[in-house]
Amino acid sequence: MPWTKWWMYCNPGVCLTRFVLLVSKVILSLPLSPQQIQFADQQQDFNKRLSKTGRRSRSFSQSSTVNYNSAVSYTDCSEDATSPRDRQQRSSKGHQDFCIKNIRQAGLGRREIAIAEQEMPALMALRKRAEGEKPLAGAKVVGCTHITAHTAVLMETLSALGAQCRWAACNIYSTQNAAAAALAEEGFPVFAWKGESEDDFWWCIDHCVSLEAWQPNMILDDGGDLTHWIDKKYPNIFKMMKGIVEESVTGVHRLYQLSKAGRLCVPAMNINDSVTKQKFDNLYCCRESILDGLKRLTDVMFGGKQVVVCGYGEVGKGCSAALKAMGSIVYITEVDPICALQACMDCFRLVKLNDVIRQVDMVITCTGNKNVVGRDYLDRMKNGCIVCNMGHSNTEIDVASLRSPELTWERVRSQVDHVIWPDGKRIILLAEGHLLNLSCSTVPTFILSITATTQVYYFYNLYNAPEGRYNKDVYLLPKKMGKTPHYLPTALLLRLWPDFTCQRLTPTSQS
Amino acid sequence: MPWTKWWMYCNPGVCLTRFVLLVSKVILSLPLSPQQIQFADQQQDFNKRLSKTGRRSRSFSQSSTVNYNSAVSYTDCSEDATSPRDRQQRSSKGHQDFCIKNIRQAGLGRREIAIAEQEMPALMALRKRAEGEKPLAGAKVVGCTHITAHTAVLMETLSALGAQCRWAACNIYSTQNAAAAALAEEGFPVFAWKGESEDDFWWCIDHCVSLEAWQPNMILDDGGDLTHWIDKKYPNIFKMMKGIVEESVTGVHRLYQLSKAGRLCVPAMNINDSVTKQKFDNLYCCRESILDGLKRLTDVMFGGKQVVVCGYGEVGKGCSAALKAMGSIVYITEVDPICALQACMDCFRLVKLNDVIRQVDMVITCTGNKNVVGRDYLDRMKNGCIVCNMGHSNTEIDVASLRSPELTWERVRSQVDHVIWPDGKRIILLAEGHLLNLSCSTVPTFILSITATTQVYYFYNLYNAPEGRYNKDVYLLPKKMGKTPHYLPTALLLRLWPDFTCQRLTPTSQS
Amino acid sequence: MPWTKWWMYCNPGVCLTRFVLLVSKVILSLPLSPQQIQFADQQQDFNKRLSKTGRRSRSFSQSSTVNYNSAVSYTDCSEDATSPRDRQQRSSKGHQDFCIKNIRQAGLGRREIAIAEQEMPALMALRKRAEGEKPLAGAKVVGCTHITAHTAVLMETLSALGAQCRWAACNIYSTQNAAAAALAEEGFPVFAWKGESEDDFWWCIDHCVSLEAWQPNMILDDGGDLTHWIDKKYPNIFKMMKGIVEESVTGVHRLYQLSKAGRLCVPAMNINDSVTKQKFDNLYCCRESILDGLKRLTDVMFGGKQVVVCGYGEVGKGCSAALKAMGSIVYITEVDPICALQACMDCFRLVKLNDVIRQVDMVITCTGNKNVVGRDYLDRMKNGCIVCNMGHSNTEIDVASLRSPELTWERVRSQVDHVIWPDGKRIILLAEGHLLNLSCSTVPTFILSITATTQVYYFYNLYNAPEGRYNKDVYLLPKKMGKTPHYLPTALLLRLWPDFTCQRLTPTSQS
Amino acid sequence: MPWTKWWMYCNPGVCLTRFVLLVSKVILSLPLSPQQIQFADQQQDFNKRLSKTGRRSRSFSQSSTVNYNSAVSYTDCSEDATSPRDRQQRSSKGHQDFCIKNIRQAGLGRREIAIAEQEMPALMALRKRAEGEKPLAGAKVVGCTHITAHTAVLMETLSALGAQCRWAACNIYSTQNAAAAALAEEGFPVFAWKGESEDDFWWCIDHCVSLEAWQPNMILDDGGDLTHWIDKKYPNIFKMMKGIVEESVTGVHRLYQLSKAGRLCVPAMNINDSVTKQKFDNLYCCRESILDGLKRLTDVMFGGKQVVVCGYGEVGKGCSAALKAMGSIVYITEVDPICALQACMDCFRLVKLNDVIRQVDMVITCTGNKNVVGRDYLDRMKNGCIVCNMGHSNTEIDVASLRSPELTWERVRSQVDHVIWPDGKRIILLAEGHLLNLSCSTVPTFILSITATTQVYYFYNLYNAPEGRYNKDVYLLPKKMGKTPHYLPTALLLRLWPDFTCQRLTPTSQS
Repeated sequence: MPWTKWWMYCNPGVCLTRFVLLVSKVILSLPLSPQQIQFADQQQDFNKRLSKTGRRSRSFSQSSTVNYNSAVSYTDCSEDATSPRDRQQRSSKGHQDFCIKNIRQAGLGRREIAIAEQEMPALMALRKRAEGEKPLAGAKVVGCTHITAHTAVLMETLSALGAQCRWAACNIYSTQNAAAAALAEEGFPVFAWKGESEDDFWWCIDHCVSLEAWQPNMILDDGGDLTHWIDKKYPNIFKMMKGIVEESVTGVHRLYQLSKAGRLCVPAMNINDSVTKQKFDNLYCCRESILDGLKRLTDVMFGGKQVVVCGYGEVGKGCSAALKAMGSIVYITEVDPICALQACMDCFRLVKLNDVIRQVDMVITCTGNKNVVGRDYLDRMKNGCIVCNMGHSNTEIDVASLRSPELTWERVRSQVDHVIWPDGKRIILLAEGHLLNLSCSTVPTFILSITATTQVYYFYNLYNAPEGRYNKDVYLLPKKMGKTPHYLPTALLLRLWPDFTCQRLTPTSQS
Repeated sequence: MPWTKWWMYCNPGVCLTRFVLLVSKVILSLPLSPQQIQFADQQQDFNKRLSKTGRRSRSFSQSSTVNYNSAVSYTDCSEDATSPRDRQQRSSKGHQDFCIKNIRQAGLGRREIAIAEQEMPALMALRKRAEGEKPLAGAKVVGCTHITAHTAVLMETLSALGAQCRWAACNIYSTQNAAAAALAEEGFPVFAWKGESEDDFWWCIDHCVSLEAWQPNMILDDGGDLTHWIDKKYPNIFKMMKGIVEESVTGVHRLYQLSKAGRLCVPAMNINDSVTKQKFDNLYCCRESILDGLKRLTDVMFGGKQVVVCGYGEVGKGCSAALKAMGSIVYITEVDPICALQACMDCFRLVKLNDVIRQVDMVITCTGNKNVVGRDYLDRMKNGCIVCNMGHSNTEIDVASLRSPELTWERVRSQVDHVIWPDGKRIILLAEGHLLNLSCSTVPTFILSITATTQVYYFYNLYNAPEGRYNKDVYLLPKKMGKTPHYLPTALLLRLWPDFTCQRLTPTSQS
Repeated sequence: MPWTKWWMYCNPGVCLTRFVLLVSKVILSLPLSPQQIQFADQQQDFNKRLSKTGRRSRSFSQSSTVNYNSAVSYTDCSEDATSPRDRQQRSSKGHQDFCIKNIRQAGLGRREIAIAEQEMPALMALRKRAEGEKPLAGAKVVGCTHITAHTAVLMETLSALGAQCRWAACNIYSTQNAAAAALAEEGFPVFAWKGESEDDFWWCIDHCVSLEAWQPNMILDDGGDLTHWIDKKYPNIFKMMKGIVEESVTGVHRLYQLSKAGRLCVPAMNINDSVTKQKFDNLYCCRESILDGLKRLTDVMFGGKQVVVCGYGEVGKGCSAALKAMGSIVYITEVDPICALQACMDCFRLVKLNDVIRQVDMVITCTGNKNVVGRDYLDRMKNGCIVCNMGHSNTEIDVASLRSPELTWERVRSQVDHVIWPDGKRIILLAEGHLLNLSCSTVPTFILSITATTQVYYFYNLYNAPEGRYNKDVYLLPKKMGKTPHYLPTALLLRLWPDFTCQRLTPTSQS
Repeated sequence: MPWTKWWMYCNPGVCLTRFVLLVSKVILSLPLSPQQIQFADQQQDFNKRLSKTGRRSRSFSQSSTVNYNSAVSYTDCSEDATSPRDRQQRSSKGHQDFCIKNIRQAGLGRREIAIAEQEMPALMALRKRAEGEKPLAGAKVVGCTHITAHTAVLMETLSALGAQCRWAACNIYSTQNAAAAALAEEGFPVFAWKGESEDDFWWCIDHCVSLEAWQPNMILDDGGDLTHWIDKKYPNIFKMMKGIVEESVTGVHRLYQLSKAGRLCVPAMNINDSVTKQKFDNLYCCRESILDGLKRLTDVMFGGKQVVVCGYGEVGKGCSAALKAMGSIVYITEVDPICALQACMDCFRLVKLNDVIRQVDMVITCTGNKNVVGRDYLDRMKNGCIVCNMGHSNTEIDVASLRSPELTWERVRSQVDHVIWPDGKRIILLAEGHLLNLSCSTVPTFILSITATTQVYYFYNLYNAPEGRYNKDVYLLPKKMGKTPHYLPTALLLRLWPDFTCQRLTPTSQS
């Protein structure tokens, strides 16, 4: 069934908000039934590779979790072997409509949620505003997203606004069991645990949709699996929906395809391309996560290091600005003339990779292209050069070319490999060429909160739209909704500027 | 005829490339008889002076010229009273088809052009590339732009590419007589001088169009006056045109109106909204000109000063970044949530003007709105506060409210007024609230060169388009022209990065 | 004997290079009124734990290790209970003159050393230069420093230059057992393991000094314990020394006291106050470690956060610059007028803590004073405010005032406490007010390498000084050693700028 | 008499506060026809030169004035030919004890002084504080400094504090006649005008010292001419002095020589090396003036330009930081390892001039050395390269090597020369290699105010010192004067931070 491989095509590079551990499914190529993984356009014989490296990469993704999401994972020590599906659990209030790892972790999860709430002020502000109002009363939401403390804040906000929720995980590894437990304890029907099998995955989704006396009318999806399932299995339910809110690149892509094919029978909202998501997930987030990721993995000092950043889009702009500020000497490669000119105007030296490859201490890819750093470049790097990827999936660095007999790989830390040439030269490869910021740093909660707020904003607009306002199409909301105050984005600002209000009637700064 | 006053309404705020002296026409409403210049402390009657505002501000623009475009104006001392229309002049080669101030200034003008060429590498590179090719052979261009050394480089480039040119000025004051002389000496039919009357203005334009045995087929316009003239007077010529290239906001606006009315009978190119023009005229240019303008007028030290920048669009972004870099403590006011959030992420403190107005040393407006700084704010500024405008026209600061009997105006330098409150408090008003960067600093030639290059690029594409490619509409060229190398923008980069070439086949950096 | 508690008074604040785990001895061994500390959800019997303070801080430092020095500590799982003093071990070559935890960790340690060598290019360059030369031939060094991979590079460099070494640890917790094993395997007489008792500590030092047929002639000390021991126990050996090289504030302070008292009988070199150490340990290092420490502990997003940095000395300058670059809005408090003026000129807003304490998201202390952030300020911070210390020891934040019955402490991660007010407000206290960068981030190897290089530089100058050049005094070498090329600092630059050479004969840039 | 040529050797490079027009004496007294150019140390006859070129260089300095100090000079049009020494003038109150150009310019001068007062808040604050106190009562000061509006603020402050003043100019060209007139009108005995002859110069100084019933007891000198004169001519007066306050490098150097020779018979204060002067005159001032000077002379766009800054001392740090912020790509050359390492840590690429000379758009020298940019480099610069000096005097660029027959000089603007190679290549030389910031930009009043405040501070401390506190030596006051509040520096901050007060009792930030 092709759908089971959907995640193979999804594009996490531009979808940072798909939580960090998206990594485990989409990226780190680990999974449990490895024979199913195939990278679309590469046609490689994956099984063969896996027979060699599968074991290893599996252990990596786990250790990745252990190191970088400390709060999440220390609870997993207590994991026992029984499948959650085989155990009947019960919340302290007797509630049983959920399926999670261990309800006893609820206290821990609640604490994590409390921490997350601190950095998600817009959602908290919304709850306050909507007190008594219940603008989402009547909404029956099925959701399929990463189940984390951040999602919990989102769900509890929807609930505070009046919606009813049932939720499954959009990824078999990313669930924070403690957060799930806290939600279940609070009475939310949650069906998710860390380490689901594929069968579990669809079983959980199905349990969110099919329930007697439960006619969901809204979908909140991240990746499109839920939408697909309902479309296929419950076409009647699908037709009765008021709409879909979809966050990921992949899911949005799929929606446009459905729409083109004339098979989209409800309106859908495209969160992925909203300004708030684009700017923050790329420019502002990468500016911080490039430093964070490099430091955690290598403890390298940035000051005085020569760095080449390949690509000067939003991601490249963020990385370059951060490294410059820390004292690195930054070079840029760029093929687009406009971006190249911007790099020049921002004080960076434009180079061809070829011209600096022998002298740089770090190479960072953010182009969105394939094989930007090929074996020929890798061969010429100097001893100790750090190579990592902030761009698209794991295709920018030609890692495959390094898996050849004359080179020795040495794992020095989790996510850090020394690749050693016959003459003793080592390069330091991070995250095996996968996205550094997804693999090795955390996404700031504040960033996640911006997307979550946007989701609620779109959700609210879609759910409350007058009859006929939206057709069976995919929508991107305009930056400005008429002259009315911006309900959500304004709320978003509350954390930053508590008394933000419109200063003058006529808005819009120049350009 | 309303057209004669068109320039009153035109919008130079977003059109920096309309050369600095556009100022004289659009803004400073100008000039000449020096005996009327009297400085504040010479006991002049301010009210009386005001009643002749026009007179008064006229004298300013001259001094503006003297101070800020030194190279241009010292040639004007030799101005004599005879109108150029009444004198027959002759180039050293006997050429007579031109009407300018003084052909003897040709040497001086040539030197200014030589200086300009240094900073316009893309055009110079184009000339080299097109050597022998003459891609514009057959083009008969009538142009109507500011006549400056920069324009001369543009015209001589068109000519080098094979075009024939006839040119008039788009502004009665902005002509650099020496540059015009150099062009005439080189054989270009130029009809322009500094200080034309309105009658002169149209006479010059007419002389560019109507000439026996001259059937122009292309228009290069800045402001739309030429287009309008041909449309009205020579409809038959108009219909035979291959197209129009229009640079200014005003002209583009007019073209869209014609198009809407179904009266645009040839394709037209919109330069104003091209990316190269927008980014450079605003962000990058203002980043430099805010410092330049403030220093030249006030010699103020930026370090440690508290500054409020109103508006965080491209202009505001440029101003804030520059002042921060010089050590100023910068506050931002902004009503658009996205821009406000960007200001926060860029380390600026969002404030309401009201909260900081008593403490700041400078107030800079870049909102595009009216009366952002009203009398109430002006009343509360501290002694010595500098107030200036980088935004839209002269509407952002409510200067009119300062022309009231209880306040004393004292002109301390050209473009610098002290407005004095009864208690002795002074605020320092720059350029009477007009655009600081247009009035009081120069636009870097490099910026002008980017727009000029874009003009040639569009011109080339329009002139060489296959039959039927463009309809009778207004066009904005896509950022990327298919997969072909970017002819012009690439050339543009030559100055910055001599060996810029496509590094890899598949381009596009992420986002 | 008061000396045994020396480390209680030592001042790690300005002594970053004392390795991260110095922490365990100097800092974490502390809590002042321990009976009040109770960690919320762990319900452990704290008093009991305290009765074995050693144990506790040991485990503390371990968890610190686990998180922040991953590579180092995972080897310690194999720790067994036998004291190293009770076991006889033997290197693969039969060498036995050492006492360490476990010689079998040598391979792992060697790898760590290899990684460290990458970032210590100056020392590696020195080895190359000195090849065949052996400028330290005849030097018999006893050393007492942290035993880490970095120290190993230092020791092996001294050895490569011709010196003989015997080494002990200057801290009972900071030893990296694997690095010690690698040194022992290489034949170095090393006496150190992680978790020594105080008796072990002095036993190890004594074993470095007293050995038949071993007459040491140089001391390389960090903290002064070794110097003290030799002075007291082996006065005859002390008198025969050629000199002492001392790195720490504490040790240098002690040397000046000895000198004043007329009891310093050999020349001593003051590394602590050398320019290379001061600038790098403070300004450049803190610029990176403030971000690193905050991210690892809190995952906070910096962009848009309001931060007050108390103190604008070198540390404050580094912290402020870094946070500004990440988009934080930074306020400075400062009492010294010169520093305050610098803050102004660097675009920061000077405030009184009182004026911003209610609005900031983070408070960072770097003043060197006591109780800069007292309970009155803590009471007024907003919910979620992060409080941490980058300045002097653990005195800047009045943590003691928070250990009062009405406040609840909740440990949410290692080094992260939520302190909760009766009304539910939480502040987030990092590292219990201890130095954030020592406790919670790593010191870049490059920084350590600069100090290590300086040590060798001073060592070389002292050891090779002509008779009578240095008296029985404490010396600080001049920034420039005459006209001769700077042997070491130049080497230092090799990593950054491979072909750094004197460009012109007459040096010195202005000021 | 060698003293008459003192100013030939004086070192304005590090003495920015010697006002901008110092230029006229030290610098602009030069050239056009190159055969007449002879530099000080080439043993030229100054008197003879003056008789030939004085006129001309005067007009030079005027044009400089016109462009760059507009406010100052437009009053000079009224210059008539009579020497002030030959005319008897009288203030409106009948005062006659002065000798200046034209008392009628007093109104204009008063206005300039009022403007200057705005930016000299510390002095104004001092006046307020000292109201009624008169801490300088009894001081009889002879001063010899540039006579400008800024000096007027200083003099009127001394007077407000109780001192009596007589003043002469320290430079024959720098006097602002209007400011002198305003002072005279106020009753100050001022002896100075723009364009004094050398004889006038000493005549004026003498008139300040020798007056019956006037026994001066304090000297405030800038350059040492006054001190020298008193020492030589009035040794008895000299011995009775309480002390000297000297600002310039040259004067301070001379004082140390006197002291060494045992001929200094009163205490002297060294202002030049005070922290407030060094940091501000170099780092902060140059950060702004490099941009200002380049813009005013060349209108160059900084964004994207490649610039090499030679030397990374305080001046180089300021220049590099400013250009980087404007988007230039900056390279650094440096021979001092510490400064070089700082450049690396600040994100600049260290290069050898040789490696980048062919590619850069600008070369800026700030090394303090001679011939940093020699003919060999000038030969290899690319067409259009801008060359200027921010460092030491006019020695850093080997301008002499450009005055050779095969090269053509073309003056395109005041202070801007094109030097043209036989193949047509032009380089753009600014200010003929003299200090760009002195010649072509203004020194911010705020900077001047900091030095002036320091002068008063030292003056106050010297004048009020208890008997015996200062010996016959040269003194530099400590940064911190005990625990007492910093009288002056604190006042200095008033402008920046109105309510600056000591926040805590125990001061000092770390390092």
